[in-house]
Amino acid sequence: MADKDRSPVTAIGLGLMGKALAATFLEAGHPTTVWNRSAGKADDLAARGAVVAPGPAEAVAAAELVVVCVTDNDVLHAVLDPVADQLKGRVVVNLSSGSSDQARANAAWAERHGFGYLDGAIMAVPAGVGGPQAVFFYAGPEDVYRRHADALGVLGGGTTYLGADHGLAALYDVALLGVMYGLLSSFVQGAALLDTAGVKASEFLPWATAWVDTVKLFATDYAGQIDAGDRAYPANDATMEVNLGAIGHVLHESESQGVNAELPRFLHELMGRTVAGGHGAHSFASMFEVFRGADRRA
Amino acid sequence: MADKDRSPVTAIGLGLMGKALAATFLEAGHPTTVWNRSAGKADDLAARGAVVAPGPAEAVAAAELVVVCVTDNDVLHAVLDPVADQLKGRVVVNLSSGSSDQARANAAWAERHGFGYLDGAIMAVPAGVGGPQAVFFYAGPEDVYRRHADALGVLGGGTTYLGADHGLAALYDVALLGVMYGLLSSFVQGAALLDTAGVKASEFLPWATAWVDTVKLFATDYAGQIDAGDRAYPANDATMEVNLGAIGHVLHESESQGVNAELPRFLHELMGRTVAGGHGAHSFASMFEVFRGADRRA
Ligand SMILES: NC(=O)c1ccc[n+]([C@@H]2O[C@H](COP(=O)([O-])OP(=O)(O)OC[C@H]3O[C@@H](n4cnc5c(N)ncnc54)[C@H](OP(=O)(O)O)[C@@H]3O)[C@@H](O)[C@H]2O)c1
Ligand SMILES: NC(=O)c1ccc[n+]([C@@H]2O[C@H](COP(=O)([O-])OP(=O)(O)OC[C@H]3O[C@@H](n4cnc5c(N)ncnc54)[C@H](OP(=O)(O)O)[C@@H]3O)[C@@H](O)[C@H]2O)c1
Repeated sequence: MADKDRSPVTAIGLGLMGKALAATFLEAGHPTTVWNRSAGKADDLAARGAVVAPGPAEAVAAAELVVVCVTDNDVLHAVLDPVADQLKGRVVVNLSSGSSDQARANAAWAERHGFGYLDGAIMAVPAGVGGPQAVFFYAGPEDVYRRHADALGVLGGGTTYLGADHGLAALYDVALLGVMYGLLSSFVQGAALLDTAGVKASEFLPWATAWVDTVKLFATDYAGQIDAGDRAYPANDATMEVNLGAIGHVLHESESQGVNAELPRFLHELMGRTVAGGHGAHSFASMFEVFRGADRRA
Repeated sequence: MADKDRSPVTAIGLGLMGKALAATFLEAGHPTTVWNRSAGKADDLAARGAVVAPGPAEAVAAAELVVVCVTDNDVLHAVLDPVADQLKGRVVVNLSSGSSDQARANAAWAERHGFGYLDGAIMAVPAGVGGPQAVFFYAGPEDVYRRHADALGVLGGGTTYLGADHGLAALYDVALLGVMYGLLSSFVQGAALLDTAGVKASEFLPWATAWVDTVKLFATDYAGQIDAGDRAYPANDATMEVNLGAIGHVLHESESQGVNAELPRFLHELMGRTVAGGHGAHSFASMFEVFRGADRRA
């Protein structure tokens, strides 16, 4: 139900994520106008009180705050470039994933057209939007963020302003997306390995999640070692030599069980390079020396 | 202090991990005999009450339960093959990392020499040994495990018997080691990415650990989808197309920031292969189809 005390919001893009954003604004009582290229996706929201705009021009006219969540930056421009002059005085909050360069270029584009721009990143799946765990990052001018902090805050308990540099949201986003895909890929590979012995993925799951909690503690030590900046990387737990042996076991077990061994082979090569670089007696944190460098074969 | 009610234990191998094992047996009151190739590493333990054996033969003679934690399976055999006949009637518990094939071969070797064999895996770092979170897996004959369950139980709160198949401990081990290296590698890469904007690894850490808790929930959904076995992989959260776009952002951001882009490039290729295999509209769980298959370029 729309609430007179709540500021109006326009939501553009009603894919899996955009729909969740619009529904959350609606539930929190924000008068919500929506637009999506394929019209059918708005039906549900219209039944719950959203105003469906016939096009982007009408959509952006309906609210000072325009939240966009579409596939990528090209789509953002395909939708908003034709109406850029009508955005004057408004604020575009871009929740589509992208790069820090795109975010900074978008800020310049917004400045040319006289509107405010915040770049954002969503660390949640659609079902988590509006929940206490959902993290939303925002980067851009602080006054612009503060003006819409209440409305943006309904999207997640972990709503966080990162700073004036428009690139920061994308940078945190990619850093965390990388963690997600590294973790999920290795989880699915572990499930494939155990599947060879008839162990179900749901049996593996509680071991994996408990183990991940333990691995977080190792990461805490490694973060401190990285920040120390002295390249000492003391092997308080295990040496890179021992780690290299261990990833070798993952590799050989994958090969002998006939499951895909490309991920452990890749990591084995990268860890071997760190050992070859003189870090055999150091901790895993010494991998920072490889990761912060350029590709070996770019 | 040695306790008359506690069974004697022999610990062979006093590296980072072996030392922690022996110290934990000692602390729990088990009369503990130790042996290590380089003698100096036993000094500390001797001062705390351990008996230092002059060689492997004397070490294995001192207790029915012989716990071995050395670099790898070759070292295990280098140490124990010469004394294999003296092991008759005893139980060797191998906590060195290895493969399921090695574990099964070791069981046959033990059978030939008339001693019991349990294969184990340690999901902890040395400092965690003896603590409530430390998981120790054991696989092999259940009666052999039960006979020494009390002594082995002092090593960690998460002591778990997996079953009679000697290969199971190694299989769980590699599945979880893969998760560890996938997670830690992507964490260190994220730290390298944020380092380009002057963000410290310790600032990144709490975001990464909270995010990992969220990602665990996705994994819960995916585990169920894998176990369903129907290859439906419903995209309840995000499609593989969207995931492919997201890992593409990690890749391009890494390239443009000049940090190592090999890990996201590798994952991008693997995820792209899943999309090309017809899973573009499916969830990330569809990566199971790639991981359970053989390597593309083995
Ligand atoms: N899903 C997640 O879990 C999640 C999490 C965090 C961030 N994100 C990010 O959120 C963004 C959207 O993700 P999603 O899951 O909602 O994707 P999606 O379900 O594929 O939706 C894509 C949206 O973009 C629109 N679109 C695509 N091409 C267009 C074009 N040429 N012109 C106009 N509109 C176009 C689609 O409109 P049509 O309906 O007409 O196709 C739809 O509204 C992505 O950047 C994604 O990385 C998603
Ligand atoms: N550290 C961890 O966090 C951790 C966690 C889980 C599992 N593990 C596993 O535990 C095992 C040991 O790891 P670690 O960290 O203790 O390694 P480490 O510190 O390198 O110790 C290796 C041990 O093996 C012995 N050794 C090596 N080559 C030998 C040889 N040719 N003959 C006799 N002894 C030999 C070493 O004796 P010297 O002292 O004479 O060199 C030492 O006792 C590995 O399989 C590892 O994967 C370790």
